[in-house]
Amino acid sequence: MKKTQEFIATNKERFLEELFELLRIPSISSIAAHAPDMQRAAEWLKAKLEKAGVDRAEIFPTDGPAIVYAEKIIDPAKPTVLVYAHYDVMPTDPAELWTSDPFEPVIKDGKIYARGADDDKGQGYMHVAAFEAMVRSGELPCNVKFMLEGQEEIGSGELTKWCETHKELLAADIILVSDTSMLGLATPSITCGLRGLAYIELEVTGPNRDLHSGLYGGAVANPINILCDMISESIDKDGKITVPGFYDNIYEFSAEERAEIAKAPFSDEDFKKSINIGDIQGEKGYTTMERKGIRPTFDVCGIWGGYIGEGAKTVIPSIATAKISTRLVAGQDFKRITQLLTEHFERIAPKSVTIKITPSHGGVPYIAPTDTKAYKAASAAIETTFGKKPLPFYSGGSIPIISTFERILGIKSILMGFGLDSDAIHSPNESYQLDCFYKGIETIPYFYKEFSK
Amino acid sequence: MKKTQEFIATNKERFLEELFELLRIPSISSIAAHAPDMQRAAEWLKAKLEKAGVDRAEIFPTDGPAIVYAEKIIDPAKPTVLVYAHYDVMPTDPAELWTSDPFEPVIKDGKIYARGADDDKGQGYMHVAAFEAMVRSGELPCNVKFMLEGQEEIGSGELTKWCETHKELLAADIILVSDTSMLGLATPSITCGLRGLAYIELEVTGPNRDLHSGLYGGAVANPINILCDMISESIDKDGKITVPGFYDNIYEFSAEERAEIAKAPFSDEDFKKSINIGDIQGEKGYTTMERKGIRPTFDVCGIWGGYIGEGAKTVIPSIATAKISTRLVAGQDFKRITQLLTEHFERIAPKSVTIKITPSHGGVPYIAPTDTKAYKAASAAIETTFGKKPLPFYSGGSIPIISTFERILGIKSILMGFGLDSDAIHSPNESYQLDCFYKGIETIPYFYKEFSK
Repeated sequence: MKKTQEFIATNKERFLEELFELLRIPSISSIAAHAPDMQRAAEWLKAKLEKAGVDRAEIFPTDGPAIVYAEKIIDPAKPTVLVYAHYDVMPTDPAELWTSDPFEPVIKDGKIYARGADDDKGQGYMHVAAFEAMVRSGELPCNVKFMLEGQEEIGSGELTKWCETHKELLAADIILVSDTSMLGLATPSITCGLRGLAYIELEVTGPNRDLHSGLYGGAVANPINILCDMISESIDKDGKITVPGFYDNIYEFSAEERAEIAKAPFSDEDFKKSINIGDIQGEKGYTTMERKGIRPTFDVCGIWGGYIGEGAKTVIPSIATAKISTRLVAGQDFKRITQLLTEHFERIAPKSVTIKITPSHGGVPYIAPTDTKAYKAASAAIETTFGKKPLPFYSGGSIPIISTFERILGIKSILMGFGLDSDAIHSPNESYQLDCFYKGIETIPYFYKEFSK
Repeated sequence: MKKTQEFIATNKERFLEELFELLRIPSISSIAAHAPDMQRAAEWLKAKLEKAGVDRAEIFPTDGPAIVYAEKIIDPAKPTVLVYAHYDVMPTDPAELWTSDPFEPVIKDGKIYARGADDDKGQGYMHVAAFEAMVRSGELPCNVKFMLEGQEEIGSGELTKWCETHKELLAADIILVSDTSMLGLATPSITCGLRGLAYIELEVTGPNRDLHSGLYGGAVANPINILCDMISESIDKDGKITVPGFYDNIYEFSAEERAEIAKAPFSDEDFKKSINIGDIQGEKGYTTMERKGIRPTFDVCGIWGGYIGEGAKTVIPSIATAKISTRLVAGQDFKRITQLLTEHFERIAPKSVTIKITPSHGGVPYIAPTDTKAYKAASAAIETTFGKKPLPFYSGGSIPIISTFERILGIKSILMGFGLDSDAIHSPNESYQLDCFYKGIETIPYFYKEFSK
């Protein structure tokens, strides 16, 4: 990949200028008025891919923003890498907190500031640049397909449908995605896991109307008290979730895997300071990194009932409600967990109340084992450019489309992201380190090389 | 009291007409525009008391509605009954639910319909009528004082201050009050207890900002979960409140007293049906009547935190809050209970959160022992007119001014009310049974007679 790296070194300025062109298009998927910008971004990408050297580039219209597909098949016998990225961005509000125009990128202190600088225009465009470098240098070692969508920030609904009907077109050995972060520039990492989600609303109804807490209090089950009991009963003192069957089939990490996770530079003290908490708390027997990455959770995301205005009102409300999120890890199926939660709450609810459970949405957890060819290729590529073997990182968040790819296309993804937590994605003044942008472009060809061996 | 009863029988129609005059005055204390009506009601009462035969009647201005004071001292050596009532009424909204003008009383199905028909113009005016009957018949057996206020529905603030500065004027052996209900016309009762109240707001703060439940979930104490734990931990499975010291010095009812309470016609099945609950629930070892009358409670009256809009938001909130009401019974001091609650929550809060407790307001519980001269007099009087011995009734609600009288004036009250639960006080279409109105007027003279023995 010597020629490829030389090509990258020579074309750095141009790549950055091209990224700036893309960043200037305000492709906000959640705001209908930006539909023409979505189309403009899709067309810009198609043109850029054609210039970069694909055999075929096509815009697939959908009921939402278009999907850009492109491919270069050099030899059907060789492996195929399917690159996924998204060209839509989040809205920019609160606008007044931006220190420069979100759609007029500027460089400051070695960072690109713009909406989408990291997520995911910056990270996505690295793949177009790296592809061009390999093609122009005659070093492309395998087949490449691109699948670029404009709906990631609003749920990838159209892409999901499109994948269902284009399975053959999308046939590949691996999906390569740069839409995640590293632990740090000095601590490269590969995201190996994403948590899933089962989210329900639990409504507890007591008496058929609000009652006077003096005249009835003590003789009637108060739905707020009962809801609190039911929530409290669902996790024990050791932070273990008591829902029967909840931990069944869960993927238990080996001592070796946990030792790898523990290598990440992480300090409980710094963590506590960063969010101003007096103490950490979580499942017994696991570290903070493990608790937020590889273990499931039971969190109430919202609760309400009774009088919530100023002052005091002495009322026993008729209804109390909670929104409950359980984050899931490998081995847990969100539909089954939703069922277990439902049965659990129905079982522990006293006869003095009735309950109603409304499942909201779910997400499948994702895990990328570290002993695969793709992981090893990404690891070797990063070690080459960063001079350090990357650590496996298990993120507590979810990128639902990744599980969707596995489910529909039957293809695993490798999450080789180059962002940093400090990039403020989704927030005002989103940025992307120039170092990350360039290191990313340099790293990608090594992945192709290793993966094609 | 033969002549008195004859006088009452002869003057029934006039008493009703006079009550109607009072009911036509829209003396709503909570609406400033009705201040002239308040004054009109006070002057009407003063004139009526003068006509009824008091020695002295006076309007005491206050910073709110006036207080009407009147007295007839027949012999300083004889006992003195201090009659308390209030001439202010609740607002009438929602106005559209009234089937007749709230300030134009009508008789329908043996009931007077009007705002204040029961609470407390109807019940209060019985005392003026009974007094007149005794005076005109030459059968008044003791001294009488009247203290009529216009602020009961908004907290009796001015009366409280006025009592402080008129202790000598108000010297009496008993305060006689008709502002409560009976179990039924066929089940007369005397209200012997009112519960007190300690009301606090408990705020739990976790991280210094809302966090993403995916990226942080499992590693950070969720303030909603913690709040639920703390609430749940405050009552055990037997419905016992676990706050240390909570039950100290509580008045424990004797087997005899509990047997009296059990005589009230009360059915758990009917109770369940009336509020559509699947089961009753409360403190182990006590009946429903006892749970809502003579035992303290721990009820969450309001709770809120996190995302409470439509759909799902995956957030660990920074703050969760609950409004907690504890109803108190004889022996419990609301200031001490507030202190105990504060210490309890501070002790059980984990180090992972901080808490803030804001006491809202409190009320002193009140108990009228059944072995006093006043209780026995009321019991005998009611038995004479209703043909049945009244049952002691312990109400779960609160009438704060009753405890205030005991605290400031050192005088016990006897709650000889003639209302019924079906009177819909504070609601549209408030009514008062004609039977109750007349039986009340007839009963009062017997109380005077028995109490003066």
